[in-house]
Amino acid sequence: MTSDKNIPTNTISKIKALRKQEVSAEELTEGIFNGNKTQLAKAITLLESTHPSHYEKANTVIEKCLAKPNASIRIGITGVPGVGKSSFIETFGTYLTSLGKKVAVLAVDPTSSLSKGSILGDKTRMQELSKDPNAFIRPSPSGTSLGGVARKTRESIILCEAAGYDVILVETVGVGQSEIAVHSMVDFFLLLKLSGAGDELQGIKRGIMEMADAIAINKADGSNLEKAELAATEFSRALHLYPPKANGWIPKVLKCSATENTGIKEIWDVVENFVQQNKENGFFDKNRKTQNKNWFLQTVDEHIKQFFHQKESFKNAQIALLKDIDDNKISPFYAAKLLLDQITKEL
Amino acid sequence: MTSDKNIPTNTISKIKALRKQEVSAEELTEGIFNGNKTQLAKAITLLESTHPSHYEKANTVIEKCLAKPNASIRIGITGVPGVGKSSFIETFGTYLTSLGKKVAVLAVDPTSSLSKGSILGDKTRMQELSKDPNAFIRPSPSGTSLGGVARKTRESIILCEAAGYDVILVETVGVGQSEIAVHSMVDFFLLLKLSGAGDELQGIKRGIMEMADAIAINKADGSNLEKAELAATEFSRALHLYPPKANGWIPKVLKCSATENTGIKEIWDVVENFVQQNKENGFFDKNRKTQNKNWFLQTVDEHIKQFFHQKESFKNAQIALLKDIDDNKISPFYAAKLLLDQITKEL
Repeated sequence: MTSDKNIPTNTISKIKALRKQEVSAEELTEGIFNGNKTQLAKAITLLESTHPSHYEKANTVIEKCLAKPNASIRIGITGVPGVGKSSFIETFGTYLTSLGKKVAVLAVDPTSSLSKGSILGDKTRMQELSKDPNAFIRPSPSGTSLGGVARKTRESIILCEAAGYDVILVETVGVGQSEIAVHSMVDFFLLLKLSGAGDELQGIKRGIMEMADAIAINKADGSNLEKAELAATEFSRALHLYPPKANGWIPKVLKCSATENTGIKEIWDVVENFVQQNKENGFFDKNRKTQNKNWFLQTVDEHIKQFFHQKESFKNAQIALLKDIDDNKISPFYAAKLLLDQITKEL
Repeated sequence: MTSDKNIPTNTISKIKALRKQEVSAEELTEGIFNGNKTQLAKAITLLESTHPSHYEKANTVIEKCLAKPNASIRIGITGVPGVGKSSFIETFGTYLTSLGKKVAVLAVDPTSSLSKGSILGDKTRMQELSKDPNAFIRPSPSGTSLGGVARKTRESIILCEAAGYDVILVETVGVGQSEIAVHSMVDFFLLLKLSGAGDELQGIKRGIMEMADAIAINKADGSNLEKAELAATEFSRALHLYPPKANGWIPKVLKCSATENTGIKEIWDVVENFVQQNKENGFFDKNRKTQNKNWFLQTVDEHIKQFFHQKESFKNAQIALLKDIDDNKISPFYAAKLLLDQITKEL
């Protein structure tokens, strides 16, 4: 009936079944441990899935990956659009692979579900790095809640580390909540800035300064160099006004140019100093433990939500109530109460 | 035994019991309907409570308040720190009360739980308005999640409207997710900006421009006036590059000075035009219905979370698992799975 008419139907279904056959958790884990990028990407797709049958398998893979020791460094990178995050990561990542390191680039961008397409982690933005055999680039998971997007990224970090990536770069857009989420999953937080017309500090949000372990003034090249110097001085001065961090680290202010490839080594040196100092004083481990506890609490909340949303009776009642709200028959608050009453009775 | 020794113990317990006696939902609603600020504030405190016994009562009050017809206008106001939100609201609110309107000021600031104190809605920032008998000012509810903070603010809007407030101003800090939350609960969204050194557009976030129904350049006074004119032209030009909104509204760019009390009437005129136009073409109602449906979905998710977190067995298991994570005995992901398995079995 089709162009396949010469092949017995039986064989076709067999091939289809085979194609459909999903890779087992063991195979995926083995692939990851062998540094196989395709299997790593498949495993990440699996944990990004909200299908209940995938949950168990993804969990198995994560547990196996967690058991594998590694000495990774997780770096969060933020900055407003236009600051040059992509070109910075391209240059910084290429520098790291030139040192023999394996680099993974992940992204947290909860707006990607709004704009129907992630603005971060797009491979076309990092042409060189995406071709580098020692680099792995993954766009932001999509999702309706920042919590969900963040959870998936955290789990992706674990898989990348098990696949042998030494440095995990987690990129985010310069908006409050996502920056807090990324800060809560990395060891080191880098804020990229541009030098402006002298009023650098006005545009900077309270909170971001407190989170940053280093501020790098990007595009510090050509006629911009002088402005960048001024901005660096201003930021350094401002940072001194903040109370010292618990770990004793004094945030550094640097200048760099991703396009001219200057100041890149210096940033990595700062990261290495930070890691060494924090491993010595115990704050590196302490920070990861605190993060683990927060991950747990957030994962629980995400799972609780999913537990309900996957129930048929829940879905149906929700659709009916949405129609009642649209018809002005019921208030949103009372509808929520009715839905909760119904499902908790059913439990 | 104490200084109360001359008063019979019996009497003391009676007084204590009386003091503890909570106001009923009916009394609160009546107080709100009579425009009693104390009762309104009490009712808002009730709905901000996470105590399960308060939930039922708060719901009753909300339902009763929802049933009371009103013709309120909800205005969201955002802008980065330093843009002069407080003084703008002080001046704008005072102008509105001078027109005989009752004005409520609410705030959404999810960072208030981080910094242990809300930076928004503080009465000391709006000295004049807080003394105005026709104004009601309430700081941001505190909470660990933006969802929770937003839900409480939405419910507060309902109570304020039932108490006869004609204009509800919902203030937020200029960070992405909170702005989206506030945009989802108002009829009109106002973005406050400052004129800078000519590069106004650089600092503006994609998304905010699309949400704004009007942009007001604040502090357009004295030597700033010329810069403000330039900024206004630039913003107007930029706004024309965006696709037209579904409701046909073309966002307006205005200049104002909260301290000199200029441009304030013009902003209110724009709001009134917007409301009239959108009521005529049906988008005012349509927007509120869409918002109601989203409120419902978000309220459900919040309640689901609470349902579990209030269970003793859940709390205890969570504490035990947190300790295991701290002792490196278990991964956060596996701990989350164990907790979920346990509680869903118990249901």
